[in-house]
Parts: sequence; C-alpha cells; structure tokens
Amino acid sequence: MTTYHAPLNDIRFALYDVLRADEMFSRLGYEHATRDVLDAVLDEAARFTEVVLAPLNAVGDRHGCRYDKDSGDVTTPPGFKAAFDRFVEGGWTGLTASPDLGGQGLPHTMGVPLNEMVNAANLAWGNFPLLSHSAIDALTQHGEPWQHDAFLKPLVEGRWTGTMCLTEPHCGTDLGLLRTRAEPADDGSYAITGTKIFITAGEHDLVENIVHLVLAKLPDAPPGPKGISLFVVPKFKVDRDGNLGGRNALRCGAIEHKMGIKGSATCVMNFDGAQGYLVGQPHRGLQAMFTMMNTARLGVGLQGLGLSDRAYQNALRYARERLQSRALSGAKFPDKPADPLIVHPDVRRMLLTIKSLTEGSRLLALHAATLVDVAEHAADPGERERADVLVSFLTPIAKACQTEWGVENTYHALQCFGGHGYIAEHGMEQLARDARITTLYEGTTGIQALDLIGRKTAATQGAGLKLFLAEVEAFCDEYEHRAGIAEFVAPLRDKATEWAALTRSILTRATDVPEELGAASYDYLFYSGYVALAYWWARSVAAAEASDRPEAFKDAKRETARFYYARILPRTRMHAAAMESGASSLMALPAEAFDA
Amino acid sequence: MTTYHAPLNDIRFALYDVLRADEMFSRLGYEHATRDVLDAVLDEAARFTEVVLAPLNAVGDRHGCRYDKDSGDVTTPPGFKAAFDRFVEGGWTGLTASPDLGGQGLPHTMGVPLNEMVNAANLAWGNFPLLSHSAIDALTQHGEPWQHDAFLKPLVEGRWTGTMCLTEPHCGTDLGLLRTRAEPADDGSYAITGTKIFITAGEHDLVENIVHLVLAKLPDAPPGPKGISLFVVPKFKVDRDGNLGGRNALRCGAIEHKMGIKGSATCVMNFDGAQGYLVGQPHRGLQAMFTMMNTARLGVGLQGLGLSDRAYQNALRYARERLQSRALSGAKFPDKPADPLIVHPDVRRMLLTIKSLTEGSRLLALHAATLVDVAEHAADPGERERADVLVSFLTPIAKACQTEWGVENTYHALQCFGGHGYIAEHGMEQLARDARITTLYEGTTGIQALDLIGRKTAATQGAGLKLFLAEVEAFCDEYEHRAGIAEFVAPLRDKATEWAALTRSILTRATDVPEELGAASYDYLFYSGYVALAYWWARSVAAAEASDRPEAFKDAKRETARFYYARILPRTRMHAAAMESGASSLMALPAEAFDA
Repeated sequence: MTTYHAPLNDIRFALYDVLRADEMFSRLGYEHATRDVLDAVLDEAARFTEVVLAPLNAVGDRHGCRYDKDSGDVTTPPGFKAAFDRFVEGGWTGLTASPDLGGQGLPHTMGVPLNEMVNAANLAWGNFPLLSHSAIDALTQHGEPWQHDAFLKPLVEGRWTGTMCLTEPHCGTDLGLLRTRAEPADDGSYAITGTKIFITAGEHDLVENIVHLVLAKLPDAPPGPKGISLFVVPKFKVDRDGNLGGRNALRCGAIEHKMGIKGSATCVMNFDGAQGYLVGQPHRGLQAMFTMMNTARLGVGLQGLGLSDRAYQNALRYARERLQSRALSGAKFPDKPADPLIVHPDVRRMLLTIKSLTEGSRLLALHAATLVDVAEHAADPGERERADVLVSFLTPIAKACQTEWGVENTYHALQCFGGHGYIAEHGMEQLARDARITTLYEGTTGIQALDLIGRKTAATQGAGLKLFLAEVEAFCDEYEHRAGIAEFVAPLRDKATEWAALTRSILTRATDVPEELGAASYDYLFYSGYVALAYWWARSVAAAEASDRPEAFKDAKRETARFYYARILPRTRMHAAAMESGASSLMALPAEAFDA
Repeated sequence: MTTYHAPLNDIRFALYDVLRADEMFSRLGYEHATRDVLDAVLDEAARFTEVVLAPLNAVGDRHGCRYDKDSGDVTTPPGFKAAFDRFVEGGWTGLTASPDLGGQGLPHTMGVPLNEMVNAANLAWGNFPLLSHSAIDALTQHGEPWQHDAFLKPLVEGRWTGTMCLTEPHCGTDLGLLRTRAEPADDGSYAITGTKIFITAGEHDLVENIVHLVLAKLPDAPPGPKGISLFVVPKFKVDRDGNLGGRNALRCGAIEHKMGIKGSATCVMNFDGAQGYLVGQPHRGLQAMFTMMNTARLGVGLQGLGLSDRAYQNALRYARERLQSRALSGAKFPDKPADPLIVHPDVRRMLLTIKSLTEGSRLLALHAATLVDVAEHAADPGERERADVLVSFLTPIAKACQTEWGVENTYHALQCFGGHGYIAEHGMEQLARDARITTLYEGTTGIQALDLIGRKTAATQGAGLKLFLAEVEAFCDEYEHRAGIAEFVAPLRDKATEWAALTRSILTRATDVPEELGAASYDYLFYSGYVALAYWWARSVAAAEASDRPEAFKDAKRETARFYYARILPRTRMHAAAMESGASSLMALPAEAFDA
C-alpha cells in the first residue's frame, strides 16, 4: 500500500514564494482570496485527500466499477459515493466557480493544488468530478441563459456531474468523421442518436443526474469538422425551467476493462433518440469543444503531477528504509547490516529525476492557471489578451509533459522498489498503470505536439513563445550577476536563444514541406518542456534564496536545480538533434516496406 | 487480441547475412548444424509458437495461476500444460543441450531465435522452461558426477524444470544478507531451512519434479557474500542413484499478485529442513550463481526483444488499418474517409523507433550467443578467451538495453492505438504490463549498469570494450569508402572514439571518487547500447546491400538505419553529458533533505 501526504510545503513555496499568487489575486480583484483563506483551503484539501480519498485508491483498483447488463447501471467501488458526498458537502465541486452559482469564487489557480492532491490521492475517483468543470465552462461560454439556469447550479453544487461525449468507435482524434445524428424536434429540442465510447463517468451512482455534452451532426451539416454541433443531453430530462423529468433515451451499453483507473467508469454510451438541446450555434461545436478540451487538458496534466508526487513519496520512503549493499565509498551505516538504498548514486538518480520533474511541473501547472485568472480578470485588455495567448501556448506543453513525466516518474519509483515494485500489494504498479492513461485521453501526446507546433506556434508566428521567452530574458537580465543564481542563468539564456532559433528553422522548412511540422512536433514539445522547467528551476532557486525558509529547503532547491541542469536539461540535445534532422528520416520509408 | 507472426525473414537475415552464423557453426565443429537443419528448426519453432503458444497469451493473463492454500499446489492457466507437453515432445527443452543428455546438440545461438519467438508468443509461459537452462548450466559446471547423472537428463528432456532460489524477503541484490541455513546431515546431504521469495516457476503442475537451486549458508559460513553456498533441492527427493523418492520438506507458501506475467507462477518457497545437496565447493555459491545469472540475464534480454517484436507487428497493423485525419501534405487516400495513421510523421516516429531498436537488438542478442558458442568450441584458446571476455562485457548491455527498450517499445506500440491501447481486449496493455518485470528480475537495470562499469570495465581495464571497438574499427576501415555505407561509417567512428574517451574519463575520476562509477553507470550502459546498435545498423545495411534480397528489404534496412542515426543515436549526447557531469549532482543532497 502506498501512502500519501499532501506536499503543502512545496505547494505554498510555489504559490507564494515563486509565483506571488496571493499578491496577484489581490491585484485581480479576488478580495476574499487572502493568504489566510488560501492557507485554510490548502489545509482542508490536504486533510480530505489524505484521510478520505487516499485510502480508497487501492480499493478502487481492486473492486473496479461494476456494470449491470439488465439495468445499464454502473456501481462505483465501495466508499466512492460516501467520499463524493463529503466532497460535495465541503463545497469542493464549486471551489473556483462563481458565487452566483453557489460556488466559492476562488481563483482558478486554487483548483490546481486541489486537483493535484485529489489525483495523487485517488486518480480514478478524481475522474468523476473532473469533467463537470469542462461542462460548466462550455455551458457558461456557449449556452443560452435558460441552460445556465437549468444546468450550471446543480453542476457547481455537485448534485449532478458532467461528461464530454466526443469519441466514437471509428473516430477519436478525427472528429470530422463522427456519425452521431441530431434530428430537430417540434419543441426546439433535438433527438440524439449514436454511440459514443470512452466516456469517462458516463454512468455511475454518485449523483442524481448526469449531464452529457455530446458532439453530433445536424441533418444539414457540412462534411468534416465544420459540421459538428454541441448538445447538452441529460440522463434525466430537464425542461427549460430546470425541472427534472423522466429518464432520457440514453443508456450505458458497457464499461471498458482497462489497464488501470479501474475505479473510474469508462463507458460506452448509446443515445437512442435522446432529448438534447443545442449549445451555441449550429455547426460550431468544435469551438465549444475546444473550450472543454483546454480545461480538461490542464486537468489531465495535473493527473501526471499528482501521480508523480505520490510515486516520489513512496519511493523515497522505501529508499530510506530498505537496506541493501554498501555505498561504493564504504559503509555509511556500519552499525546496520547494509546501507539504505538512498546511498547508491543510481537510486539517487531516479529519485532526483522524479523530484526535479515533479516540483518543476508544479510550477508549470500553477503558472498556467494564474494565466487563466489573468486572462479573465486583469483590468488591462492587453494583459488579458497576452495571458490568453501564453496559456494557449503552454497548455499542450503542460498536458503532454506532465503526463509523460508522470509515466516516467511512476516508472522510476517502481524501479526503486526492485522486484517488490511489480507486486500489487506495494501499490507502486497501480500508480504506473493509472499513469498510462494520461498520455492517451484528452488528446494523445502526439496530438498535443501537433497543437503546440501548428495552432499555437506556426499559426501565430510564435506569439506564445515570444511572450514566454520575454519572461525568461527578463529573469536572466535580473539575475545574471546574482551569487548562487548566475550559474543557472547562462545555460538558461543559451537554451532560450536556441529555442527561438530551432523554432525559426522548423517554420522555415515547413513552408515548403508541411510534414516538417509533424516530424519535429514531438521533439519540439519536449524541448520546450525541458527549457520551461529550466526556467522554473532557476526561479525556484532565486525564490528560495530570497525567502526565510530553512537552509535545508534552500539546499534542496539548489541541489535539485543543479541536478536538473546537469542531468535532465541535456535531453534537449537529443531533441534538438532529432528535430533538426528533418522529416526525411521519418517519411522516406514507404508504408508497405515497414515489414519488408 | 494481439496476433503474432514469427519474424523468420529478419531472423534469417541476422543469422546468415549479417553474422554468417552457419559458416561459424561449421568452423566450430557443429557438423550437423547445416543450413537445412537450422532452417527446419526455425520453421518448426515459428509454427509451434504461433499456433500453440500465442493464442494462450491472453488466456494466461486472464486466468493467471491459482494457488491452493491447503495443498500448496499451483495450477497453471488452461492450456499451459498441454502446450508444455508438446514443447517437450518436440524436443525444444533440449535444443542446445548435449546429445549425451538427450539434447539435440545445436549451437547455443539457436536458442536465441527459439526464445525470442517463445517470449513474443507467450512470455508468462516461457518462464516455466526458462530457468531449467540456468539450473543445467550450474549443475554441469559445478555439480558432482552423480548430480549430473541424477538431474541433468530429466531437466534436458523437460520431464523436470529448474528454479533459482536466491531472493529472500529482506535481500535481493545484496545476497550476503541471506538467512537460509544448510545443516549437514549424517548421510552427506543438508537440511535446508528458510524462506525464498520471487521464485519463478517455484511450484506448478507442468512436470513431475522441480529442481530448486538454492543459495544458503553453512553453519561455519563467513559473513557476507563469501559465505554463500549452492544446494540442489528437489521437490521430490532424488537419491544418489537418481531414484525419485517422497515429497521433500519444502512447500509453496503463496504466489504473488503481480502487474503482469500473470500466467507465470511467482512463488514464496518455504524450506523446512528440506533435503538438499551441496553443488560445488562450500562458500563458493556466488560463483555458481553467476553461472546461472549470466545465462538467465541473456534469456531475460530476449523477453524484451520478443515483446518488442510482437508490439511492433500489432502497432504496424493498426497504423495501416485505422483511418484518422489527413496527411499534413494533403490526402494520401482521397477515396477513403481519412488517411491511415501511418501517413502521420509522429506515428512513423514511434513505429521506426520500435523497428530500429528491435532489429538492432536481435543482432545484439544473436551476436552475444555466437560468442558463447565460440567461447566453448573454438579450437584456439586465445579466441575462446576473447569471446568469453567480450560476451561478459556485452551481457549487461544486452540484458538492460533489451529489457528497457522492451518497456519503451511496448509503450510506443500502445500509444499508436490511442485510447484503444489502454483497453484490455486489444491486448497491447498486457504487453506493456508483461514487459515491466524484465527490467527488475535477474538484476535490475541499475545492477546491470554497475556490473558493466565495475566488474566488466573498471576491473578489466576495459578489456571487453577494447575487443568490441576493435571490431567496430575493422568494420569502419573496410567500409569507409563504400557507396551507401560510408554515410554511417563516419558517425560510427566518432562515437567509437568518444566511447573510449568517456570510459577513460570515468575510470580516471573513479580512482579518487568511487561514487563516480555508480554515478555514470546508467548513462554509460545506455551510451554503450546505442553505439553498439549503431554498429549493428551499419553492418545490417552493408549485409543487405551484399545480399540478393529484394530492393524493398534493402530500402527498409537503409532507411531504418538512417532513422536510427538521425533520431535515436543522438540519445548518446544526453547520456554523454549526464555522465560527464560527474557524481556531485547526484551525491550533494543529504538523504534527509530529499523532502526538506
């Protein structure tokens, strides 16, 4: 069994010392988001996730969700409903939602530590409330007033949950191919018919109603992605006055047997003329979908972060407790039969890899969330616009890197346990299995990479990158002569310069050969992620030095940053070489010769 | 469900065209190992593994092994015993064993394609016969004549299977800590008492007897690894005339619930004064253990290879069938609703990564096995000695790289399936779960890395590396001006030079700071693996060009080699930078500050 302790110390460091988020909240007009309130929220979130959710993690894996063929009902694992009720009672579902809707009106940024903790404690459980946020965002931005009134409050209050019904058996990424149909009815509603798969929390027993946001095509839809419309389709019908009616014509047809997140219900949803309402304009569903996706992508990134942190804590504990062999330089604990694993350099390599990627990712995630707050609440429209461009640029990096690092980190943590890591009772293998979904759903890593280099870079002439590099340059200018920081500034500046040059090189090549974008995309994304983390590590050292934290904490930040620069940042060399090698090494082999 | 087709075409290319193994076998005196015989063996192995073993792979995962608490018996999954019987009838258990023992007397090298196919078809099943080879090797080299007579023939014939009982609950890597005791009895046997864990095939229903090779300590044992002795302890007693007696005092106490290889029985074995016999000299068990370990390590490397190949085949099939989105340069199949995944550069990146690592690994593995044959059978003692040094050097590289690449390759292959890869019915997630054990057992990757840089490099002043580099240099000299090959020769020579320089640099630093060895070990191992594969890819292109194979095959080898040099070999830059950064970035942080 793995344990979990919320990393409040590092969360507070990231929020207050590095990002100065409390000052920012005040500037943005979040008057009630005082340091006292924020601290109380963090403490309560830690208590809830450690005490209520974390012990249910292995339970969920062992029991899984159960599907009843006759009723189409899904039963969640023991304890999941009671935990959800407490989550709702605590007001957590509406933490960052508007008080008008029953929310607590805290900054979006505060959703990041909450969700990191929820995911670390129990990823599978966390998927039940997760997509409500996406549904709320889509309905808020694109829904009619009566839809706001009817759907938003119960979603915010956690009486209902939401889903995103995008994928069909023959199409995931390429939604232009979808076949689900929406026929107009006389009363202004639509009859939705089709099959959706991989619907997270599509059916379950935690709440009284489930609000599906469904992509479908109207009878007059143009072909391809421009013919997609968005509909809100509740499990129990909801009329225009918000009254709950009878069961809608939709049903869970099966749940998937998966590698992990077994406590999470991944549903096949069959819509058989179900009553739904158009959200937004006809054929403009893709736009509404991106609203949902961006929220969900940042949320899935936090799954990688949460799992990484839990994996680290348990690997560290084991590395300190497990006695095995002597240090190469001689016994460190001669009174014990052997030294603990943590004396061994290669075990330290694995631990420091996890630690540096995890604490760095925490800043990547929190920074992106502060930009969402700025984009919504800054007084200056230019500042709002810049924040929006920058968070759009950072979203695919955050999603893909945090999830791939989650896979890597849970890998290393399991490896620290040796053979014991492979055994179910230690719980490390569950973390690795659970992590594996995160690079697949809400857009695979390859899709994030294309989004970054295509829509977020090529299509904007690198607007997002320029904003980020300007921040990096400003930091470098400020700290280049500061004792204790300067050692990071020079290599960081070099990487920033190289990042810009690589970007120009790819975009130039892509004007002639469109495949150059796709061929560079994966390496460009990770290159970007590693340089971004180098920036956050340099800033972390600077912030730690400037703080009144204990020397051990400052040492840990400095030495972890040094490790990161010495042993992780060189991954950029591999990525730079790969993307500079161009598309031909990928495209030359004919498809039929792959097994010649 | 995944499918499997034995890659006979590439196996034959590697064996005959690249390694010219058939000529070598003849030179070594394997007169009956003619091309016809070898081809017939390959064809039969392909048939057996494709038809009998492959369909049982998912069955084994679903059913797992069952343990009966009352009897201590273990029941293997449905079909496993029938398949084992056919394996035995086919003479596969003795393929490379001496005819004196009932074996077929084929070269050790031929065990590699057999085991690659077995592992690809059904890794969990393959673990039942696997460790018999280790037991045979240990008994052959260290056992008394009566032990040869009593144990070897039934092991070779597959009537019995073997195990390696090393690990205990508190010690795996550090066997000096073990607590299992051996008390001398009046009749020259020993009473073995203790608990061993993680015993692969420790108990099962496939054969009539199980021969445990058990590490234990004699009453007068000096402390630490120098006090370990090896004992042979059968499940049913065997007297000095080879007669089977009653049940020995040992019992399976439990089987582990694991992440994967669920069809393989991983047993807790309790020895309660069980009758055993000393193998080799008292307190010299570690030496005998290394005999077993080296065989087993090369065998586990083949598990990574087999899984990689099966993963590739299925990912390739899916990438050709699944229609999703259009190529960035415009529709390639305008008559279809979308293009197949394989048109997309990033999907090709994943496929070519698997293909290049897998075909390269096949040569790494086969080459190592040819060296075992040379070390045993070459007429010239100097040649035998050199082969032994070289295979010792290559063994940790082969084990660690092939298994880590197995993890990576099954990762990419699953990723090619998108969300479907996470669903059990597609079978890709089983391959990923099964692969995860291979970097843990028979010495973790970290232990292989220490073995390579310590015992196999520092302790021998780089003797193995020098032999390998001499081969590389000879190849470079021969081909540096050859059209179609020269493009690989220059970068290969650079890497060979850098490899030697990095080695000198580490060994020099390690004379003052012993931790430098451990700190460089992981990156040194992978650096070595990637350069070794660069050599095998250059040689593959040369061999393909010189052959009369179809142009499509030659194209595939050349373009895959170009991909490897452009996009995989640059990983050496990251590893070189990391190992050159020295030990301080790993050792500076005090153990207690890892969660400061």
